[in-house]
Formats: sequence, C-alpha cells, structure tokens
Amino acid sequence: MAGNSCGTLFKLTTFGESHGIAIGGIIDGCPSGLLIDFEFIQKQLNKRRPGQSELVSPRNEKDKVIFLSGLFEGKTTGTPIAFKVNNEDQVSKDYDHLKDIYRPSHADYTYEAKYGHRDHRGSGRASARETLSRVVAGAIAQLWLTQHKISFTAYVSQIGTVKIEEGQHTIDFNEIENNEVRCANKEVAAEMKKLIEATNLEGDTLGGIISCHINGIPVGLGEPVFDKLHADLGKAMLGINAVKGFEYGSGFNAVEMKGSEHNDQMQYDGNNILFKTNHAGGIQGGISNGQPIYFNVAFKPVSSIQKVQNSVNKQNNNISIEVKGRHDVCVVPRAVPIVEAMAALVIIDFMLRQKAIT
Amino acid sequence: MAGNSCGTLFKLTTFGESHGIAIGGIIDGCPSGLLIDFEFIQKQLNKRRPGQSELVSPRNEKDKVIFLSGLFEGKTTGTPIAFKVNNEDQVSKDYDHLKDIYRPSHADYTYEAKYGHRDHRGSGRASARETLSRVVAGAIAQLWLTQHKISFTAYVSQIGTVKIEEGQHTIDFNEIENNEVRCANKEVAAEMKKLIEATNLEGDTLGGIISCHINGIPVGLGEPVFDKLHADLGKAMLGINAVKGFEYGSGFNAVEMKGSEHNDQMQYDGNNILFKTNHAGGIQGGISNGQPIYFNVAFKPVSSIQKVQNSVNKQNNNISIEVKGRHDVCVVPRAVPIVEAMAALVIIDFMLRQKAIT
Amino acid sequence: MAGNSCGTLFKLTTFGESHGIAIGGIIDGCPSGLLIDFEFIQKQLNKRRPGQSELVSPRNEKDKVIFLSGLFEGKTTGTPIAFKVNNEDQVSKDYDHLKDIYRPSHADYTYEAKYGHRDHRGSGRASARETLSRVVAGAIAQLWLTQHKISFTAYVSQIGTVKIEEGQHTIDFNEIENNEVRCANKEVAAEMKKLIEATNLEGDTLGGIISCHINGIPVGLGEPVFDKLHADLGKAMLGINAVKGFEYGSGFNAVEMKGSEHNDQMQYDGNNILFKTNHAGGIQGGISNGQPIYFNVAFKPVSSIQKVQNSVNKQNNNISIEVKGRHDVCVVPRAVPIVEAMAALVIIDFMLRQKAIT
Amino acid sequence: MAGNSCGTLFKLTTFGESHGIAIGGIIDGCPSGLLIDFEFIQKQLNKRRPGQSELVSPRNEKDKVIFLSGLFEGKTTGTPIAFKVNNEDQVSKDYDHLKDIYRPSHADYTYEAKYGHRDHRGSGRASARETLSRVVAGAIAQLWLTQHKISFTAYVSQIGTVKIEEGQHTIDFNEIENNEVRCANKEVAAEMKKLIEATNLEGDTLGGIISCHINGIPVGLGEPVFDKLHADLGKAMLGINAVKGFEYGSGFNAVEMKGSEHNDQMQYDGNNILFKTNHAGGIQGGISNGQPIYFNVAFKPVSSIQKVQNSVNKQNNNISIEVKGRHDVCVVPRAVPIVEAMAALVIIDFMLRQKAIT
Repeated sequence: MAGNSCGTLFKLTTFGESHGIAIGGIIDGCPSGLLIDFEFIQKQLNKRRPGQSELVSPRNEKDKVIFLSGLFEGKTTGTPIAFKVNNEDQVSKDYDHLKDIYRPSHADYTYEAKYGHRDHRGSGRASARETLSRVVAGAIAQLWLTQHKISFTAYVSQIGTVKIEEGQHTIDFNEIENNEVRCANKEVAAEMKKLIEATNLEGDTLGGIISCHINGIPVGLGEPVFDKLHADLGKAMLGINAVKGFEYGSGFNAVEMKGSEHNDQMQYDGNNILFKTNHAGGIQGGISNGQPIYFNVAFKPVSSIQKVQNSVNKQNNNISIEVKGRHDVCVVPRAVPIVEAMAALVIIDFMLRQKAIT
Repeated sequence: MAGNSCGTLFKLTTFGESHGIAIGGIIDGCPSGLLIDFEFIQKQLNKRRPGQSELVSPRNEKDKVIFLSGLFEGKTTGTPIAFKVNNEDQVSKDYDHLKDIYRPSHADYTYEAKYGHRDHRGSGRASARETLSRVVAGAIAQLWLTQHKISFTAYVSQIGTVKIEEGQHTIDFNEIENNEVRCANKEVAAEMKKLIEATNLEGDTLGGIISCHINGIPVGLGEPVFDKLHADLGKAMLGINAVKGFEYGSGFNAVEMKGSEHNDQMQYDGNNILFKTNHAGGIQGGISNGQPIYFNVAFKPVSSIQKVQNSVNKQNNNISIEVKGRHDVCVVPRAVPIVEAMAALVIIDFMLRQKAIT
Repeated sequence: MAGNSCGTLFKLTTFGESHGIAIGGIIDGCPSGLLIDFEFIQKQLNKRRPGQSELVSPRNEKDKVIFLSGLFEGKTTGTPIAFKVNNEDQVSKDYDHLKDIYRPSHADYTYEAKYGHRDHRGSGRASARETLSRVVAGAIAQLWLTQHKISFTAYVSQIGTVKIEEGQHTIDFNEIENNEVRCANKEVAAEMKKLIEATNLEGDTLGGIISCHINGIPVGLGEPVFDKLHADLGKAMLGINAVKGFEYGSGFNAVEMKGSEHNDQMQYDGNNILFKTNHAGGIQGGISNGQPIYFNVAFKPVSSIQKVQNSVNKQNNNISIEVKGRHDVCVVPRAVPIVEAMAALVIIDFMLRQKAIT
Repeated sequence: MAGNSCGTLFKLTTFGESHGIAIGGIIDGCPSGLLIDFEFIQKQLNKRRPGQSELVSPRNEKDKVIFLSGLFEGKTTGTPIAFKVNNEDQVSKDYDHLKDIYRPSHADYTYEAKYGHRDHRGSGRASARETLSRVVAGAIAQLWLTQHKISFTAYVSQIGTVKIEEGQHTIDFNEIENNEVRCANKEVAAEMKKLIEATNLEGDTLGGIISCHINGIPVGLGEPVFDKLHADLGKAMLGINAVKGFEYGSGFNAVEMKGSEHNDQMQYDGNNILFKTNHAGGIQGGISNGQPIYFNVAFKPVSSIQKVQNSVNKQNNNISIEVKGRHDVCVVPRAVPIVEAMAALVIIDFMLRQKAIT
C-alpha cells in the first residue's frame, strides 16, 4: 500500500535513500533454476550510473550489486532474491544547506507534508538513485524473458527540441550504445550532444523522450478491463522519476486519425496472420496481439538547475536558492536502462499471470 | 490478478458482458454512513449512455442501476456495495455474423487467443458497456469526496483536428453540459459537432482528447516510487477503452522546456505557499502539492466503421467485412463521465491510504 | 482490505446481507473453457440450506443461484463470474425487536462499534447466509479440481460430547450423506441425532467438529514462510462463522508426542516414496508432500438460544432478551459443504500459483 | 504471491536462507515519526536466539540487526525499513552429508519437489532462522502499538505432557522471563525443565503449546467475512515453523459446551459494557469487542532427533540417517517472541486498516 512494490507474481519491493547505508530490494516470485548472468546485470547498472561520460554527472558511484539471498550455485532457488548496493561515494554534507529548504519542483515540500520526518540528504527516498534497484530486478527479468525470446530496446528519440524525425531520420538500434546520448541515429545523437553542452554552459537542464520497442511477445498477454497490458506499462513508466507522459502505438497522434486510417487490417498469408499496420502498438483490448509493442515516455527537464530561484523554507520564509552539488544536464540517456527494466518487470509479471491460467 | 479490480482500500471489481444478463460490480471498502444520492449516480450514468443526442448511437439503453447490498436506510453500511444494470435493449442476433470473425482493431482476435472460449456478442467483456460499472462506483466515490471538498471536471478539448487552442479559446466549465460534445468552449463545440456530422456521412469515426481538472486535493496524497499519484491516474485512464496516451501537468510539452522554464517557483504570501506556475500538474515526486491536478487523455477513433475492411476469421480465411450495428462516430463525449469516475476512484483510494498512516 | 475477498489468482469477492435484496459474489480468475455442472453447484448449495430435515431450521429458502456473467454456452469464458441468490423467504419484521439490542455472542455489538450504521435484520452481513456465496464458488473450484483428480470429503466427527472415537468407530465416507448429521459413522450419527433432539427440547444449542480430507493433491503446493498451505487452509476455516479452532495432521495431539514418534519416516518401494505415517497431514514446511491432507475445524454452539439472557442495548440499558426466530440447534451438519468449499477455494488458488512458476 | 510477505498496510517481506549471506526483510508502510528503541528490538531478538541457556542449542549466533534504510535521526521516515542480520556462526560443512538426503518430517523433500534447485544447507529458507526477521518487524510494530496502549504477553503453557492446569496452577506473567522455558508458573516451569533434560538424554525432542494474551485492543478491529481478526491471527500463527494447531477464546473446548454456557452475557455498569465471561476471546463476528484476546498455538516436536531413522535420498535409495548438528530438544521457549511478533504484525495491520475507514 505504501507504494514501494511493483508486480503481482514477480514482485519487486525496493528500499533505500540516496544517502543512507544502502539501496536495494527483494524480488519475490522469480522462478527457480534461472542461471544468473552477473555481468549482464552489472552492465545494465553501469548504463544507469552517473559519470559514464563527460555529459553526465561526475560522481563516480561504483554501484556494485551484492546478492544476499535466493541464489545458490549461481541459480535462483525460487525463494526471495534480496540485493543491495552500498552508498559509498555520497557526500552528505553537500546537502546540509538544504535541510529546511524546499527546492522548486523537487519532492522536498511534498515529502515534508506527507511524512513530517524527512531524510533531506540528496533527495532521500525521492532520489533517482532508487531506480538502481529496478535495473537490477529488471535485468533478472530480462534474463528469464530472453529464454522466452522476448527482447527490449529503448533509446533516446528526443532531447529538448532535437529529435528523430519520422521520414527524415533512420532508426538504427546498433547506434544506441555507440553514442553518449543513447540515440538510435548517429547524426541526431551529435545534435543532441551539442545541445546538452550548450545548455550546460547556461546552467540549465533538458528533458526528452525515450522510445521503447518490445519484440517477441506472444499473443494473449494482458488482462482486460483494469490491468490492460498498456495500462500497466504506462503505470510502470509514469513511476519513473521525472516522467510526465506515456503513449503507446499511435499514441496522441491517434487523435487526429480517422477510424479507417487507424484500423489495423488483417490478412492471412498461408502461415501467419499479418497486420497491415501496427497503430495498435501490439496491443488490442489490453491484450498483446503478437505484433511488436512500442511506446514513448516523456521526461521533464531536471529540476536541479545552476540558476538562482525563488523558493520557501520550512519556516515559511521566502528565500532565493542556487542548487549546488553535481547534477546532470539531461538524465534521459541514463534512464534508458530504467525504461527497459520497468518494461521487463511488467512483461514477466504478465507472462507468469498468463501461465497460471493456461 | 485477472484484472477486473481497481483500487486497494476502496476496491471496485466489475463483471458483465455487453449481451449477457447484466453488467455490474462490487465496491469493497466504502466508508460507512455515507448518504447515497441516487439521482447523482443516475445522472452520471446517463451521461455515459448511448442515445443522448443525435450525435451518438441511437440505442436506447435504460441503464438503470439496481443496488443489491451494502446500503441500509439510504446510507452505506461499510459492507460490500453490489450493483447491477440489466442488459435489456440488446439484440444479440445483430452479432451472429461476427461469431467467427476478427474485426480489425477490436479485441476479438486477442480474446480468442487468450481465452479460447469467447462471448462474441457485442464485443462481450471488451465492450465499453463495462465502463458503466465504473461510472456507478466513481459516482459513489465522488459523493464521499465532495464531503472532503474535492471536485472533478472533465471535458472534451479535442475531436479529430478540432481543438481548444491555448491563448485562442477560453475554457468555460459552465459550457460543458450545454453542448452535445461536452466541450468547454461554445465555438469549438460547434466546430466539433460539424466535424462529427461530416464524418458520419463518410461512415468514418473520430478520436479526441479529454482534459480533466481535480480541485481541492490536500497536500500529501500519493505514494512514492511505484504508486505515484500520477502513475495510478495514468493507469486508470489507460484502462479506459480506446485510450492511447496520458500526460499530466506540462506533459509531452515538458520535453521541449528548459529546467529554468519548467520549475514551479514557490513563494509565501503570509498565509499560504504559492506556486508561480503549475507545470507539475499538482504532483511532485508522485505526491500532491495542493495545487490543481490536471491531465489529458488521448482516445483513438472508434474501430467500428461503416466501410469495407479486410480481415481474417477464426478459420484463417481472408474475408472482407462491413461492421453492422449501431455505433458512435465519436465516443469521446460519452467518455467524459468515465474519466471523472476513474479519477474519483483513484483519489478516494489515496485519501483512504493516507488516512491509514496519519 | 475490507475483508470480503479470498484467494489471489482465483479470487472470490462476496456481497450481501441476509435480509437485503440478494446474496452473491464475483469469481475473478477462473480459467476459461471449464464446463459448468449446474446441478452439482445446486446440490452443494442445498446441503447448506436450512430446512433440509427436521433437525435443522424450518425456513424453506429456495437458494437458487443465478449467474449474471462469465459463462457462455455453458462454459467459463475467463471473465468474472458474477452470481446471486435472491433473498426471498426472509421475514424482516421478525427482527424488528432486535433493532437496538446487542444479542450475546452475536456480532451486533461489534458491527455497531465498527461501522456506526448497521443493517440489524437477521444479523445482516454477519449472517451465515453469506457462506452461500462461498459454496457456489467452491463448487466451481471443485469442478476444475475434479479434472485434476483432487477430491474433498468433509464430515461431522463430533457434536457436543458425542464423537467418532479413534479405534472404537470406523470411518465410512459412504455414510456421510446417509444421515442427517453428515457423520461418517452410522451409530455415532444416531447418537448425535438423539443429542440434538434432547438439546432442542432444552432450548439450547450445540457445537461440533468437522473433519476434512483432501485427496489427490500433487507434491509442491503451498508457499513457504507466510502462505504455508496449512496456514491458508487455517485462515479459510477460521473465516467460517462460529469456528473457534483449526488443527491439521497430528494437530494438538502433536504436543504430547516425541519427535521419534511424530516423524514420518520415508521409504522407496521401487515405484513411489511411501511415508510410514502421516502426522504431517500431507504438508511439510508448508508445502504438500503428496500424502492426503486432513484437518479438523471446531465450531462453537450457536449463539441464538431459546432462553432468557442478560444483555445491553444501544442506549446502554440493561435488558433481558429471548431470541425469537427460527434457528438451528446445531449448524455443524450444514457447515460440511462450506468446509469443502473453502478448502477447494484454497487449493485451486495454490494450484494456479504453482502453475505460474513452473 | 510467493508467500514471503505478510500484512496489507503494514507489510513485511522477508528474505534469506539460514546459511546464505544474511537474513532480513523490508517493512513497507510503517507510519513515520516513530522513535525506534533499538534495545527493545535486540532484546526480543535475543529471546529467539539459540544458546540462551543450557536447555537450548549451543550455537552462539550473534544475531545483531543492521538497519539499511527508512530511519533518520532515530525515527522512522515512512519509507521502507530494510534490515538484515548477517549469518556469521554458520558451519555449512555440517550439512554436506545431507545434500541429497530427505530428512524425515523436514521440508527437504517438498522444497526439492517444488523448486528443483534447493539450498540444502541448514534447511535453507525453511530454517526457523527466517523467523528472526519477523521478530525485528514485530518489535517495531510493538513499539507503535505500545503508544496505543496495546500489549502482548505470550508464554509456554505446555511442554510434552507437562502443562499449566486450569484451577490447579496460577498464571503469573512476572514468572515468564524468570525461567528458561518461559512458563508463566514457577513449579510447572521446573517440571518442564526436568522433562526437557530427560528427553535430551534420550536424543529425542518435545512439542508444546504457547498461550498469548493481547490487552488494550479497541473495539472494532477486524474485517468481517474472510479477514476476521482471529482468522488472520490464526494464519499468522500457522505460518510459524512447526505449528500444528490454533484456537482462540474457548477454542476446541467450545465443542462440548452448550450455547447457554458459552454465550458471553453483557451488562452495563454505569460506565462500561461488561461481559460476564470471555469465551469469545475478545472477538465476535471477526471483530474485536474490547475484551482481552487470547489464543493457543500448538507446536509439534522438533524433527531433528539424535536417533537413527529410515528415509530416502534424491536418487530414490532407501537410507538410514542420524541427523547431526546442534539442535534444540524443544524450540517452544524460543518461539515465545515469535508468537508475540506475529501477533503484533497482525494487530498493527488491522489498526491501520481501521484508521483508513474512520
């Protein structure tokens, strides 16, 4: 009820504040006998880590995951998998001046109002460092899903005003890890990098869009009515820090299309049912139809800017603040593995739910 | 797990197929002693009903709600509130020709794949008639929330290409029930009506956007991490039939804003904390900040068009079909009470969750 | 959260007060394609019904179940199965004199305290009539479990001081439906009947024990730690009206046994693993071991006695009352189908949970 | 779903195997601002620890709890409280000879069947060492409940055939921590100690009963129908290792009482409603009535005996085994804090559930 769990059969509960002792979680419900590829998990974690390139925050978090339970001889046992990442490279004193201050568009004010007693250091529980636990759990889900031939590919399709334009730019998944912004187009990636550098000089920040494709989904995943497959994907994405919007398939573009344009007509080619278009984004009536699933996630610009802002403190005084500390100009590239992780957590859960009834 | 429930403390479970005996639900967790305003519930139901005007489907469903339990002397008792609406004006034979056919962009194919055994009549469980149960439960939630001074106002802000343009058109909530399309601007409403009539002549259909405002929300609602207030609102909206996207506050527009533009600076005026802007849409870090909540919901055009389409049947034959039956050109106006209902269901749930811990 | 649901994957939510319009429920999560044997369901319901013999309450409830959804062409569709039983033969006026009175050992006082607003007629929601919904859902679960070769046999093993003594009396499941008290031994049944008749003349009431055997359970059902198979069986039984205790396998007798006596030694006979004893009651570490499961459920005597008692009313006056109305001397025989139903609901849920992870 | 969580609003999820890296858990939903008394938590843990006296296992586990999150400046923050206890004094090699062996009446066989891949060391996840996490969480719940004037007192009322006889022995809660067996009567405690010593010489083991009293419960806790207060208490107790039975109030004795004896008549004394008896055990219709709650929990004798037994191994060979390692003759005294902890976890959950709706 307190909102720190996701999933039903493959359930992740996370814990930890950015400047507490550790961040981590428990996965309850992972099938037994799954061989764990520790390198893959760490690789996904590293993609989320600050300090990967000059474009992102210079903190050098080691973010090494330690498993406490649920594994034996390198394989899952079916019991809870607990894991943690220690908070090592955190300088709490950097945040002392913020103890009583509500930073604009941060969760400081709302946490104070909700809980009364608040760990203010580095955003505490509201820090995006919490997503680290999701990447670990998502990577384990991906290991299982890979065995079922399901794959996830997320990439940055827009930063600020720079975007991959349909028709104008090609999308090449092989490019994603070749550039620092995780864009699926080389030229657009270069433009994005320029924009980030310029914005950094201004002391300002940028938002963006991550697009995600899921391939290999069998027909029949998703539950009708409230737990539609895209509704749970949407909730999962909206639960990522800084996300403001979600659309799948034709998304907001569907609004201006007519039914005759939008409908995905079907045809049987002798072997398979083919869909002439995929405006459905692979989901009809909340249930997967076997076509690729794709969706977009909108991120707002980072709230921590290097500019003077007006705000209020706990004592109701008007103040002006300039947020110190090491922050990203644009977190969107680092959110790519988080989007993949959350997508994997949703899909494995629906896979298990479907197995239960068939 | 099978997806027919929403909410945690105020929990709604719905049942029913469009051409079965009845549609209905059980509300479990409604506080006791709430005086039920049956007229309000029926009024909300009537807004959802087909046949309200010439613009929408001519079916004349009576949609009279019958309560089976949980009420005594006109007030809730704290026990489950079961209700149903009988399916009276349904002509099952209208659907006989569709028994083995997969209509393009309907849930026919995915239900068949998921369940094997399917009630094909009028889309069965996938029919938007199911949302009737949500409107009943949402209306009860609204009655309780009204006592807590929380109100919901949804309206149509776009149909096809016709929309309320910021800066160009005013938004007047009093207009909403004055026009058949439930638009908050009289002139835009007239344009929308024209577009619907023209599209009807083409045998085609239209999508649209519903915008929703929630006022009176106290600070502190919402749970961090996975159950962020906007994440649950998003899931609730994405669970409505035909919805393709959700955004709150600045939404997808946030992508092109800089942090310095987007941040909502705060000021204390001697009595209250004021926010200079509300790009947050009333929610920071997943928790309400006391400002109005607002969001947009994108609907695709109705799949049932009066045109010949290619498709496939259960026997894997290629066929061409023309969907018969009485259908809406644009369901968006009828979805207004559904959006309000789902929003109310989410908010009452978080209100009770917050009461539990404070 | 409000306690009107049981199960996780095969989930039953019940509704209804004894003197409201109807009693019923929704099953969410029943696998599709299950052929429904309506006669079996009604037969189980009839076993629970008052007025079956001279020994039990003379009310002649018809208790005919009506299905509202989830079935098509006689088979389940995988969507929610809603059902109801109308409350026909209920004379509400019989209860008018009890409106403000707290009957001793009834739920009147606690419901009033919890909810403030209470339907006092015939115990309202606290009436054992609510269990009717469990019998319907349990019967559907049994239909599915029968296909998996799992069977349930409950019988009355004790009423008041009369019991089936181990060593002295044989247990014959074929006798159960041959006598009005549903005892698995003919002679003991006759003694029980005599005791009930004598107690009826005194205007008093009796408790008893129901024993239940489950056969055909595969190895591996149950979840370790909190959701041990016997823990969920125990909760299910303790949730039945008037139940005061639960024990499985050796139960309370285990307390006086030594480890060397109690341990179930194992042997392989060339084909199967055999257990020399079954003190485990078919469950080890919370997980089924393939042996028969058996347990006992203790019922207190009915609270509604035909004798003058002291009590208190809503206005805090001391009063003396004599409960009128038609009541059972001993409800235990009628609870036999309820015990079977609750056991079936637990087992089908764990079967589906196990399917999800294997 | 995988059974490693308990509670709904105050939710505990536990992890860890007896010979893994650590044992621990996450509490999600603890109200914020609760001052943590670390000494109390450690004191409860120490009561559960082996090696407290000569009567119990000589292992000297340190069992020092380490908190990883959710606390700040000594108080809860409302975010998840993660904690762990490292597994230090565990000699895994002690268990090497048991790798492929199914010990009689242990969970070895059922875990192997359920999961395929099993951590056999020291019973793995099935070890009672897991209950350590429950004691930590239960102690935190007790700290909160103490502020609400609710207290828990559990004690050993029977070991083997030696018991506190009603009428013959007095019950003195002050004695409980004065003797090694945690019996509430000095003389009976001495008898119990003798029995344990004699049984130890035989290489055999003993079961027993723990009785628990809860005082200060307000009227109105518990949810009708499935989540009756005693049903959840029963499930919680049946989820403790080695428990075979649960009864509350009059329990199994109710079976032989008549309604006129069993009913708890009520009287108003000018200030309060008094109950002449408390056969209800403080719970009517599943809801607390303000009287003390009391219940009994039956434990089987420990399965690990120092005698030769027949069994089977993974390869289906018949074998004879003698379990080595350090084991308790009777674990019941060490289970006293576990019973209190589980009771506290249930009660705090129902307290929060009640707060939500009132």
